[in-house]
Parts: sequence; structure tokens; C-alpha cells
Amino acid sequence: MPLVRISLAKGRTAAERRAIGDAVHRALVEAIDVPPRDRFQIVTEHGPADFVFDPEYLGIHRTGALVIVQATISAGRSLAKKRALYRRIADHLAALGVRREDAWINLVEVAAENWSFGNGVASYAPEETLVTATK
Amino acid sequence: MPLVRISLAKGRTAAERRAIGDAVHRALVEAIDVPPRDRFQIVTEHGPADFVFDPEYLGIHRTGALVIVQATISAGRSLAKKRALYRRIADHLAALGVRREDAWINLVEVAAENWSFGNGVASYAPEETLVTATK
Amino acid sequence: MPLVRISLAKGRTAAERRAIGDAVHRALVEAIDVPPRDRFQIVTEHGPADFVFDPEYLGIHRTGALVIVQATISAGRSLAKKRALYRRIADHLAALGVRREDAWINLVEVAAENWSFGNGVASYAPEETLVTATK
Repeated sequence: MPLVRISLAKGRTAAERRAIGDAVHRALVEAIDVPPRDRFQIVTEHGPADFVFDPEYLGIHRTGALVIVQATISAGRSLAKKRALYRRIADHLAALGVRREDAWINLVEVAAENWSFGNGVASYAPEETLVTATK
Repeated sequence: MPLVRISLAKGRTAAERRAIGDAVHRALVEAIDVPPRDRFQIVTEHGPADFVFDPEYLGIHRTGALVIVQATISAGRSLAKKRALYRRIADHLAALGVRREDAWINLVEVAAENWSFGNGVASYAPEETLVTATK
Repeated sequence: MPLVRISLAKGRTAAERRAIGDAVHRALVEAIDVPPRDRFQIVTEHGPADFVFDPEYLGIHRTGALVIVQATISAGRSLAKKRALYRRIADHLAALGVRREDAWINLVEVAAENWSFGNGVASYAPEETLVTATK
């Protein structure tokens, strides 16, 4: 379900980018009950003119190692779960050496019926199967 | 109205990418009444480390030919219309040789007033024109 | 708060892209009360096959200089504020020589609790501090 876009400054190795994706996915699984196999991520790298961030907004000191995560998820998670998610993402990124100040996250919420994972069907709002009782 | 982001693994020709965009747009027109000229699409290609998908989630077997479509649309389509859209996208992509399992779609819904197609106005929420009745 | 994605055809200089980002950010600050330091933008450039737009939808004549802005913001702005935002973006881009017809904007609205600007916390929905009255 989540479609996760991870935006980074240029310069990490493929293995480092993959590890960042792993960290974010693990947090989604642990904090908001995303199924482990429900992983869809698009990672992009950008030059300095195109990756623009304020290094002090809200008094948080960000660096060029900033990890911008925009995750589209199904609506309905509680604030407590969202908080747990932010904390877990920062925790798992920190384990990779990303400063906690550089974990930047935004969630976009959509209806469960807004996903099709293949085969042209609404994966989370399947057509009803007519069940006819038989004697 | 729709802003459609299509994400692909690297390797298709420009003509192939354009044909994928054509297929998605035709489905939007046919299934959810998007005006034919209302076409705005951004297509991006990604290396394998940056285009991450599960090849089996929900029992659907995906390949590197996966087409990830994230379409931002105005809110208000019925579930029936969304289902028709998913089916049409898969149908039209299949006609290009994309396996139906590789048609991956997410919809983000926004208010009609959230669009400006140019000239600095809210295209779908125009300022009221004062009409004064004259005898 | 806003996460702003700016999509362009290939060909502008880094300074030109930065100036476009400046123009969009200034409009957000002026029209919808975004804090001046609350600036987070990702700019991408695309080849002609991958940057698809209709040159006449709604009778607005667009060119390859089109600036597609998709801004994710916190929900709750009035229609009047959104209109002011569209107008300001078009105004500030026009000052750079971008035709007003080429200012294309979409807003995605999310809950205030959907943002974490670092440190693994919900920046706009902080944990309550228990305040105990003392005599």
C-alpha cells in the first residue's frame, strides 16, 4: 500500500540508497502495520540546485544528508501510530548514520479503494462475490 | 486535471514511454470522464536500486516491466468508476504488451479548487461574475 | 510544511531553476502564511517524451517553458487564499519571464499531523506536556 518516494542529494552508493529504503520500510511494518511484502519505493537523487531545504526550520539543524520521505498510505492511522512511525524512521535511519535531524517525513493519506496492485482491480475494495445459499 | 506520474525501470524507448502515457490517458478519458485535452504527465525512469517493488505482494507476480502510476485527480469518483479506471489502464497497457500484473495504480484525490491550469486562477473554482439583472 | 515538487522541461540553468523555486516559495509565504524558513523543494527536469502537457486545455496556450508545481500543504486554507496563491505564483514567475499561461499548479492537502521535520516527532502535533499546577 504505501507508495514511498525518497528524495536525496546526489552522492550515495546504490547500497546506501537501498539501506535507506530498507530502514523506511521496516518502520512502516513495525509502526503502522504495513504488510512486510507491501513495499513499493521510488528513490531519486538530485543536485544541490534541485534539492532545496531550509537548514534550520523549527530549530532543527539539517544537512545535505537530509532524507526526504513522502509516503502515500491508506487513511485511518491514529496520531499515536503516526508518531510511532516518525520515531521508527528516525531510529532506523540513525542506525545507518543518518542524523535524526535529517529524517524528514510527510504522509499523504488516500482511501483504501485508491489502490490497484495489479490485474486491473481495486485491491482493497474487491468486487463482492455473490454467495447464493443452497439447501 | 489529473497530474499523472508514471515511474518505470530504465530501458524503454521514448516511443514506448509515450505509448504507456497514451494508454493511461485514454483510460482516464474513458473511465472517469477526464476531458481528452486534460493531459499532464511526468514520466521518470529509475535504476534497479531506486525502483523497488515486491514481486509477489497479494499473490500478484510483478516483473521489472512494472508500470507505477500515481494519478492526482479531483475527488468524487465512485468506486465503480475507480474500478473501471483500473481495469481500463490494465487493458490498454496489456495491448502494449505490459502484463496485467504489472499495472500498478494509486489515486490521490484533491478538491476541485486545488488546480490552476495557468493564468494564476483556480480553474475549476472561478471567481463569481456579478450578474446584474436589467429590465 | 509545504513539500513542493517543481517539474520542468530540460534546459534551464541551475540559477534559473533556483529562481523559479524562489518565486514559488515567496508566493507561499505571501499568500498562505507559510513561514519563510519553511522551504522544502524538489526540482526535476525531464526530456520531451517524459514531460507531457496539453498546449491548449481550457483555452490556455502553454509552451515547453511550462512550470508544473505540485505542492503538498496542510489542509485548511480558504478558497480565497488558494486563489491568492495561484495569482502570486503566476505573478512571481512572470517577473522571471515565465508566461502566466505556463504557471501550472496543483495542491495536495494533508493533516497537520502528517509532517515530521526531523528528530522523529510530529512537528505540528507535539506530544502534550503534562503541566501540574503547583501551589
